[in-house]
Amino acid sequence: MEQFHNVGLIGRLGSPQVIDTVRRLSRFLQQQGLNPILEESIASVMPGHNQQVAGMKIMGEITDLVVVVGGDGSLLGAARALAKHGVPVVGVNRGRLGFLTDISPDEVEEKMMDVLAGRYTSESRFLIGAQVRRKDEVIGEGIGLNDVILHPGKSTRMIAFDLYIDGQFVYHQRSDGLIISTPTGSTAYSLSGGGPIMHPKLDAIVIVPMFPHTLSSRPIVVDGNAELKIVVSEKNATYPHISCDGQIHINCAPGDVIRIHKRPHKLRLIHPVNYNFYDTCRNKLGWTADQGG
Amino acid sequence: MEQFHNVGLIGRLGSPQVIDTVRRLSRFLQQQGLNPILEESIASVMPGHNQQVAGMKIMGEITDLVVVVGGDGSLLGAARALAKHGVPVVGVNRGRLGFLTDISPDEVEEKMMDVLAGRYTSESRFLIGAQVRRKDEVIGEGIGLNDVILHPGKSTRMIAFDLYIDGQFVYHQRSDGLIISTPTGSTAYSLSGGGPIMHPKLDAIVIVPMFPHTLSSRPIVVDGNAELKIVVSEKNATYPHISCDGQIHINCAPGDVIRIHKRPHKLRLIHPVNYNFYDTCRNKLGWTADQGG
Amino acid sequence: MEQFHNVGLIGRLGSPQVIDTVRRLSRFLQQQGLNPILEESIASVMPGHNQQVAGMKIMGEITDLVVVVGGDGSLLGAARALAKHGVPVVGVNRGRLGFLTDISPDEVEEKMMDVLAGRYTSESRFLIGAQVRRKDEVIGEGIGLNDVILHPGKSTRMIAFDLYIDGQFVYHQRSDGLIISTPTGSTAYSLSGGGPIMHPKLDAIVIVPMFPHTLSSRPIVVDGNAELKIVVSEKNATYPHISCDGQIHINCAPGDVIRIHKRPHKLRLIHPVNYNFYDTCRNKLGWTADQGG
Amino acid sequence: MEQFHNVGLIGRLGSPQVIDTVRRLSRFLQQQGLNPILEESIASVMPGHNQQVAGMKIMGEITDLVVVVGGDGSLLGAARALAKHGVPVVGVNRGRLGFLTDISPDEVEEKMMDVLAGRYTSESRFLIGAQVRRKDEVIGEGIGLNDVILHPGKSTRMIAFDLYIDGQFVYHQRSDGLIISTPTGSTAYSLSGGGPIMHPKLDAIVIVPMFPHTLSSRPIVVDGNAELKIVVSEKNATYPHISCDGQIHINCAPGDVIRIHKRPHKLRLIHPVNYNFYDTCRNKLGWTADQGG
Repeated sequence: MEQFHNVGLIGRLGSPQVIDTVRRLSRFLQQQGLNPILEESIASVMPGHNQQVAGMKIMGEITDLVVVVGGDGSLLGAARALAKHGVPVVGVNRGRLGFLTDISPDEVEEKMMDVLAGRYTSESRFLIGAQVRRKDEVIGEGIGLNDVILHPGKSTRMIAFDLYIDGQFVYHQRSDGLIISTPTGSTAYSLSGGGPIMHPKLDAIVIVPMFPHTLSSRPIVVDGNAELKIVVSEKNATYPHISCDGQIHINCAPGDVIRIHKRPHKLRLIHPVNYNFYDTCRNKLGWTADQGG
Repeated sequence: MEQFHNVGLIGRLGSPQVIDTVRRLSRFLQQQGLNPILEESIASVMPGHNQQVAGMKIMGEITDLVVVVGGDGSLLGAARALAKHGVPVVGVNRGRLGFLTDISPDEVEEKMMDVLAGRYTSESRFLIGAQVRRKDEVIGEGIGLNDVILHPGKSTRMIAFDLYIDGQFVYHQRSDGLIISTPTGSTAYSLSGGGPIMHPKLDAIVIVPMFPHTLSSRPIVVDGNAELKIVVSEKNATYPHISCDGQIHINCAPGDVIRIHKRPHKLRLIHPVNYNFYDTCRNKLGWTADQGG
Repeated sequence: MEQFHNVGLIGRLGSPQVIDTVRRLSRFLQQQGLNPILEESIASVMPGHNQQVAGMKIMGEITDLVVVVGGDGSLLGAARALAKHGVPVVGVNRGRLGFLTDISPDEVEEKMMDVLAGRYTSESRFLIGAQVRRKDEVIGEGIGLNDVILHPGKSTRMIAFDLYIDGQFVYHQRSDGLIISTPTGSTAYSLSGGGPIMHPKLDAIVIVPMFPHTLSSRPIVVDGNAELKIVVSEKNATYPHISCDGQIHINCAPGDVIRIHKRPHKLRLIHPVNYNFYDTCRNKLGWTADQGG
Repeated sequence: MEQFHNVGLIGRLGSPQVIDTVRRLSRFLQQQGLNPILEESIASVMPGHNQQVAGMKIMGEITDLVVVVGGDGSLLGAARALAKHGVPVVGVNRGRLGFLTDISPDEVEEKMMDVLAGRYTSESRFLIGAQVRRKDEVIGEGIGLNDVILHPGKSTRMIAFDLYIDGQFVYHQRSDGLIISTPTGSTAYSLSGGGPIMHPKLDAIVIVPMFPHTLSSRPIVVDGNAELKIVVSEKNATYPHISCDGQIHINCAPGDVIRIHKRPHKLRLIHPVNYNFYDTCRNKLGWTADQGG
């Protein structure tokens, strides 16, 4: 059984409830004889905490386990920083169940006790990386646990681009953009855009056109190891953006080439035992509602 | 290089053009010193043919290669019979490009010459099997290269059922039915029902709800090795059907349990060199049409 | 103010709860000095009731108001019988809110008191009629408050047909069928099929293709006075059906011509005051569920 | 019969082909003894033209007919300026059929001869207006022939807002925005967003949610006279925009109230005889493509 000693605590800023939960977690971990380490931004709003503090960048190196308190968005940010270190991550939500943060704040001690005792489910979630090249130069890079999105940026104009998958030409498209999503992201923005739900275990990437001009254009699911290439058409009057998890932004220009592919390191995501992906879907997506008479 | 000597010829009935193409193929194969073997139903409408004849069932045992002349539907039928023998199959369409039958009749000698010389692309396409149990008895079985569909049969009433994936409860649903599709089937009925396009290489199955009462119900993509179980609710007033590739039909009853999973044997599908799945999509799905002004 | 004296009571069969509500209504109406008239099928399962009884056909002639107890489906049947008489109809649901039956059984006396005192909202809901002709002969007719649906009947094969609107050719389509829906039906089957929600006051009809082969085929909304004509293609191998409200069925054949248009008489539907169509949508369609994190 | 004498000519800038067509039209109209009047921006790129010139604002007052040469986008701009004057407008496309510009440049003399001789079809197309209020002040106004769109502007964040129709609360929504479209706009952006096609004669407005968080949120079609009100939630971190026809932009702030309703003046749009809206749909939307085998 994995022994956790140094436990990182990351919290979403701006919520007194999150600070309260981080305090409870910190106290609980000390009572268990463990060493809680506060991420520096949450530490800065917890005066008089008396804990070890670390920046996000080294958090992955010095901890055996990281607890993220906040929404799914908070966990996305932590995941991008922590995945390369292989440290397991567990998510505590702010009172409302998330797809990634599935421990409720009022049961946090009980569930953490389970985790510390080895009673948990562990999953690998892959991330995707985007690299933007202009002529022969890399002008921007980013990674996403959920998705990489090509969108018009400030403009409301359509984008024209070509898509290639594994070197094969797929289509020339005019649309509001393209969502490239992992299974993890398939229940987020991609789903609002008409993409399918993909089970977290699936090794696949989905490509969802946003408001495409060609009505027969549909989401395409490809193998997780596929190499995607988007060429922004020279004739575009606008400067589109690339966003990763809606949190990292790269400005593109006509003629830029964007390459997207799976990253080598995966996030180790920890869930309470009895975790069932479909339970979360039913809860979060309102599958119990039924229009019928 | 694989040497083909005994080449099976299967043709869709009811079209003089198909018979003509089968005759051309037969003559061409003899000229190459090979042995064409006619499937018995097409042979029966080709009086005076002087060729060896075989039933569909043993075709897979005695041939090294099978050519199917017709539409994608003809190839589905052949695939279900031939997959377990591992014999490679190539499709010739009737003048209109198919997803599976991608050799055009007017270039049939040239393309077959390529295939015989080893200039071809070979793919594995998996099939799925459905088994219907009533109490402790198996009452029906079928396999599909495209899909297994639960639908209302004669009735226009909705079906109520429970879905389980890998033993986990997914949802109770009231709908017109469920499409369980392979990547091969993802560009057929599943696509009309709102399912995503899945690249043929992907090892995945998609589950598409048909006109679900719950508006938030969406297509779900799961690993190709997932075990699906549908339990037809006891309270159903109607007797739904299971269809495989729209060609095999099993009558179900309330309380029946349907299990669906990948079959061990795969279809070996042969394409001309330079085959590109996305080229076929652009052609067949009208991706070149563009609504915009 | 409209004075109601003879009040028809129609109840869905097969539910003790419905019988109970009909009894409560009957007693309440007598206490108010009014004359409740039981529809004969519900009367037949209420031994010893001592009330006047009438068949559905003459119910519209002898009543000033009709109360339907059951689901939306029960109200559809009553609506088709009563619309031509102009008698107002009010719906009591069986415990679960409907789009048409919006009085809850536990508040039935209170809400009926309001209705009798003139405190209600009254709406006109139009119906559509379908007429099937074979050569020069009418072989079937039906009307629907929700919808007229062309579907494959027993077969799972696609239907090929031509659609004309106001004499103009719209398209040749191959699909699982076509839903022709009124605003009332737009929140029923049509919605599951991807049709828009249409406000009940809108004078419009929506045409929703079911699993169309042509992916760019979309729902079309036309004026309520549009004349629709469907010509079932001669080449169909199958015999499609026409269903009205999923309750009336007409068997068609290749070559048949189906004409669909608004009926002259409208249903007068009564709601409690403060009725808001969008409240019902939010409740029934789960608009309060929100996937996000 | 309407007599046209002063004929305005408006052309999209940046295309030599458009200038060529405007020259041909100008010469043709003079040959017919009529008075062509060039819109000033196209006149500025036609040196030595010797024609009367007028600005867009007074074009509607001094002409009996206006010809717009360009794409549907060019006609949108002209329509907003001309609708209030009631002058009829006819559209000539740049070689590619539009929904609004349906005369082809190579048949321009022949078709204009028809129009001058009274052989044409005339339609009324209504426009919608948007007014943005901040506290008690109107901070922006715009009109659209196609649509009014609430979108996130520079941000990629979702917008939170409340929608009211005719004073009734519809929903609180979190999404990428809302498309409010006329029948004319229903084949443009609204269609890419999943909205229905609405026949140009229909007196209705469609409201299409863009990537809504609530998966059961669907397009809603309401009467053309409906009054829509959007209240941008105070809690929004972002400043959304209102766009009219994608050409006019108003910056909004949290708390702003946007009112949208039909404008009193309609565009008179002229088509060649035998105009059929569904012909244009089939051509532009690729309804002849058929995925099936």
